[in-house]
Amino acid sequence: MEQRADIALIGLAVMGQNLILNMNDHGYTVVAYNRTVSKVDDFLNDQAKGRDTILGAHSIEEMMALLKRPRKIMLMVKAGKAVDDFIETLLPHLASGDLIIDGGNSHFPDTIRRTKYLESKGLLYIGTGVSGGEEGARFGPSIMPGGSPQAWPLVKDIFQAISAKTPAGEPCCDWVGEDGAGHYVKMTHNGIEYGDMQLICEAYQLMKEGLHMTNEQMHAAFTEWNKGELDSYLIEITRDILGYKDEQGEYVVDKILDTAGQKGTGKWTTVSSLDLGMPVTLIGEAVYARCVSAMKEERVTASAILQGPKTTIEGGREAFVEDIRKALLASKIVSYAQGFMLLREAAKEYNWKLNYGGIALMWRGGCIIRSVFLGKIKEAFERQPDLVNLLLDGYFRDVLASCQQSWRRVVAQAAQAGTPVPAFMTALAFYDGYRTARLPANLLQAQRDYFGAHTYERVDRPRGEFFHTNWTGRGGSVSAGVYTV
Amino acid sequence: MEQRADIALIGLAVMGQNLILNMNDHGYTVVAYNRTVSKVDDFLNDQAKGRDTILGAHSIEEMMALLKRPRKIMLMVKAGKAVDDFIETLLPHLASGDLIIDGGNSHFPDTIRRTKYLESKGLLYIGTGVSGGEEGARFGPSIMPGGSPQAWPLVKDIFQAISAKTPAGEPCCDWVGEDGAGHYVKMTHNGIEYGDMQLICEAYQLMKEGLHMTNEQMHAAFTEWNKGELDSYLIEITRDILGYKDEQGEYVVDKILDTAGQKGTGKWTTVSSLDLGMPVTLIGEAVYARCVSAMKEERVTASAILQGPKTTIEGGREAFVEDIRKALLASKIVSYAQGFMLLREAAKEYNWKLNYGGIALMWRGGCIIRSVFLGKIKEAFERQPDLVNLLLDGYFRDVLASCQQSWRRVVAQAAQAGTPVPAFMTALAFYDGYRTARLPANLLQAQRDYFGAHTYERVDRPRGEFFHTNWTGRGGSVSAGVYTV
Repeated sequence: MEQRADIALIGLAVMGQNLILNMNDHGYTVVAYNRTVSKVDDFLNDQAKGRDTILGAHSIEEMMALLKRPRKIMLMVKAGKAVDDFIETLLPHLASGDLIIDGGNSHFPDTIRRTKYLESKGLLYIGTGVSGGEEGARFGPSIMPGGSPQAWPLVKDIFQAISAKTPAGEPCCDWVGEDGAGHYVKMTHNGIEYGDMQLICEAYQLMKEGLHMTNEQMHAAFTEWNKGELDSYLIEITRDILGYKDEQGEYVVDKILDTAGQKGTGKWTTVSSLDLGMPVTLIGEAVYARCVSAMKEERVTASAILQGPKTTIEGGREAFVEDIRKALLASKIVSYAQGFMLLREAAKEYNWKLNYGGIALMWRGGCIIRSVFLGKIKEAFERQPDLVNLLLDGYFRDVLASCQQSWRRVVAQAAQAGTPVPAFMTALAFYDGYRTARLPANLLQAQRDYFGAHTYERVDRPRGEFFHTNWTGRGGSVSAGVYTV
Repeated sequence: MEQRADIALIGLAVMGQNLILNMNDHGYTVVAYNRTVSKVDDFLNDQAKGRDTILGAHSIEEMMALLKRPRKIMLMVKAGKAVDDFIETLLPHLASGDLIIDGGNSHFPDTIRRTKYLESKGLLYIGTGVSGGEEGARFGPSIMPGGSPQAWPLVKDIFQAISAKTPAGEPCCDWVGEDGAGHYVKMTHNGIEYGDMQLICEAYQLMKEGLHMTNEQMHAAFTEWNKGELDSYLIEITRDILGYKDEQGEYVVDKILDTAGQKGTGKWTTVSSLDLGMPVTLIGEAVYARCVSAMKEERVTASAILQGPKTTIEGGREAFVEDIRKALLASKIVSYAQGFMLLREAAKEYNWKLNYGGIALMWRGGCIIRSVFLGKIKEAFERQPDLVNLLLDGYFRDVLASCQQSWRRVVAQAAQAGTPVPAFMTALAFYDGYRTARLPANLLQAQRDYFGAHTYERVDRPRGEFFHTNWTGRGGSVSAGVYTV
């Protein structure tokens, strides 16, 4: 009876339960534990019924006694204080070489801190992203582990067994990197997920309000889209949602309130992009779009006050739906390019050696953003592991070139018709900004030098030489010093 | 000789020097001090020469001995550690009721912390925004003080004397609110400044690249703009910059490198907007635009690889310049509306009672964003102090209505011509989103419920009731619990 379990899992909400069942399906003996102990028995008597290699523990001591050494204990509890609390609770019971795994959506700085803390006590720590929702957890999530490198061999088999597989059979789980790298990659994944969802919403809004398409027609469009370059989980479930009727025979999507929250990983991604100076504009706009959605009452008020245009979208429906598809695809490429820019900068900042193709592979299956598209990203990084920017890869460059006219039409028409498409727009603005050798920031630098003596560099002089012009003839020779705008 | 100075100022970079001269011009006796003491003598022998009511101190003790009670000591030092260091240095020398003023660009949470700290020691603290660059500091800045309310009467006369005045003669300085309120308002000012500068840059880029206008022609356009609704300091200096030639008779603006930094208050504003869930999209895009500008080498590379459109801007130059002017004005209204949304939410979060009309008045003169436009904002808040959103004010609503067609044309043409205008675009997307009663977030909520059992609210049921649909027929009845995307 003693020491026969491969791993313990603490936290029996839906994700935790499903991960246990998934591990158990793959032959692993798992101990289930929960702070509210009654949930352990509920689980054993319900979802885990009849499985004699899922064991319940009613105390930390009991859980410890059941685990093989070195012990592997996975937390699936709420990110934040609960993780620190459980670490402290577990500490007195652990021996050198034991491993705690945090599978929640922890913020990466916490994971960096916790890894250091546990390593200082001779223990091992993993912070891992787990994506795929309840279905993924049950039948194959994407798993993105980072932390103590010595911990990876201890869980590699379990994690790769339970993870999703690509169509080619590769596990959607690999070692990401040291300390917070796994949670950083998961955070970025979630940010990209925010962006993908917003892009789909904008396509939906254009079809619904601009082209007056019915749910049935939109269901058909997404069905088609899911057969091509956009083939992905989120397009697939959008297709299903648009076709889903309730018992009254009415479309559920039309009954859902149009307000969404944003207090999570999408925000963290945006804050990190600001900290690192990376223009991850599409995720930023996606987060803000949720904020606007939350202002429901104000929007209803404003809709009666603020004028819109009288024009509607021009051109045939079929052609414009194809334009929208291309706008979505091009915008999606920009969003992923921005996401990988962020990862690259984070790797520099936090001293991680990230394998970008490997990350694309981890996201290829199991997780919410899984798609055929990610296979193309993996190929791009295989062709050129040091690729500076996805946009510069030959494949994506060509797709963008073939999409750009449609994309521009969609943005132009949406602007003229008054349909908000912030993500399509910011993606296009980024594409055009990124391919502009000379941006107007020379004027901005002139302004800063004018009002604040901030100095500027010159196009005809080496970088690092700074010049100041006494624009007004009045300013002194004293440099700014204190003030930086 | 002893105790005759009204105020001491520490930190003799350009802003500090100019504030001293400004105070002295208004009849105040000021003690100047600097950590590197040689700068004190340099200042006394140079800019302050011949002024016997500007005193130099060569030690903290000497400075203290010269000050009237209660002592008022203003720091104009680098935000961050230097402020904390000086506070600790000063503390042993201060008596109950003495006041430290921080006039640097401190981050508002630091000011909240410092106010509490000094008040706990029986002292007073002010954190104040000072805007206007070196010219402003010398001849009349905008001053935005917050902190210990009892401190305001001690500095009101000095600050209002040296501050800028509106055309009607009102001082551009008033009490903002408790603890960090002054620095929060200054931060927001700087964020708005980022936005204003970006909007001008986009207008410039459209004129230069889209309409192929010369510096002289653009100088003429900005000269005209500065006579109307856009009359403002930043338009004025843009006019001057575009007309400024160096000794070789060449335009300086064309020699300036197009890269700008962004590690400052613009970023803080954006992070705060994310923390508070307020869609301050235009400042966000302005910060990101600086990030893109900084990627100079990548942009040059990309410019040879990524395709743009062949089309150019259609329509006559004069008409399109007027379209750009209206696009700038409308976008500017959106940006200020977003800025005031942020202030309102911050006031809730941090328990400040902000006077929005008063803030507009403080920004009306002296500071970098000073403009006729801010007078209109002040009037809007006078008409309706509890105005929910500037966009809903009758004046701004009408201006937007009269600008929107031009604005839409500019965005559409820029999209078609490949000119990046991220701020014009995000402003328009916000305007259209804000006036949309039903956004596509219903689909987004359906997606979240589909993959994560996150539940949703319904249009036909009261807020606060949450529903879950078993979209696939496979998901269990267990709710999400842990995971929130």
